[in-house]
Amino acid sequence: MENTKTREEAIEKLNGLIDDIDFAMLTTVDTDGVLRSRPMSTQKAEFDGELWFFTSDRTHKTEEIERDNRVNVSYAEPKDNVYVSVSGAASISKDRAKMEELWNPILKAWFPDGLETPGICLLKVNVEQAEYWDSPSSTLVQVAGFIKALVTGKRADGGENEKINL
Amino acid sequence: MENTKTREEAIEKLNGLIDDIDFAMLTTVDTDGVLRSRPMSTQKAEFDGELWFFTSDRTHKTEEIERDNRVNVSYAEPKDNVYVSVSGAASISKDRAKMEELWNPILKAWFPDGLETPGICLLKVNVEQAEYWDSPSSTLVQVAGFIKALVTGKRADGGENEKINL
Repeated sequence: MENTKTREEAIEKLNGLIDDIDFAMLTTVDTDGVLRSRPMSTQKAEFDGELWFFTSDRTHKTEEIERDNRVNVSYAEPKDNVYVSVSGAASISKDRAKMEELWNPILKAWFPDGLETPGICLLKVNVEQAEYWDSPSSTLVQVAGFIKALVTGKRADGGENEKINL
Repeated sequence: MENTKTREEAIEKLNGLIDDIDFAMLTTVDTDGVLRSRPMSTQKAEFDGELWFFTSDRTHKTEEIERDNRVNVSYAEPKDNVYVSVSGAASISKDRAKMEELWNPILKAWFPDGLETPGICLLKVNVEQAEYWDSPSSTLVQVAGFIKALVTGKRADGGENEKINL
């Protein structure tokens, strides 16, 4: 029960942080090992432990993800001093019901024919780690509900930042 | 000569884009393969093909870089609709003269004893690729002067974006 609550609180916290940030930078590992990022329009629906982005299966990033599904999604809002790092595993989905749920008229800029645009699909990120800074000079706050990778209980870069369990 | 000019133009373009963005998100590959990012205070000096950040050799990211030096540096400024992705190879430097050149009083927030702060060092990124979007819905513009990785002459994700040689 305690874990469930922690995860719920983590989700609520992350929702509050990314809610007003319209574009995230999605970093993937390119076929030649190069780390590349690009802006992605973020979902307007409530975040529930997964992040969803509309994309096209005719873009190279869908190939990159099939080869190496590790991604980072970063959110930066300089005016509010909010910086968020989300790590996870990505996959491509063509779930029509999910697309209808997440569709937003602003997406017409990229998908002129809406959900009928050839190649339209969803990029889903299963969130495994999340960290945020609510001012750049502040200590890091780790959103503990998502941490699956840390088996030692010790934060990777604990030397530089404070760890807070929500 | 033409290559030199292209590189100069690329540097000038990138300088103009990142000049007013105080914090970048630096993405590294963690020891367990997880992609993590964190805000980094950006240099105030002119960019000349290398990016420099102050950090501490007591942070985990310096270890990460020694193990896997591929990094991405992303710049996001929502109010100006500017998004920049820089890919490169990172290394740690303790070059005192370079630190003195790049030191900025704002860095006192992280390094209270200035250049005498124990562990202070520089993280240097040799830029190999750079791309930018001057509005999220615009086509991508590749800063061609840095492209070393593309040997085929074909852009990796040419399907989704326009390539412009500066």
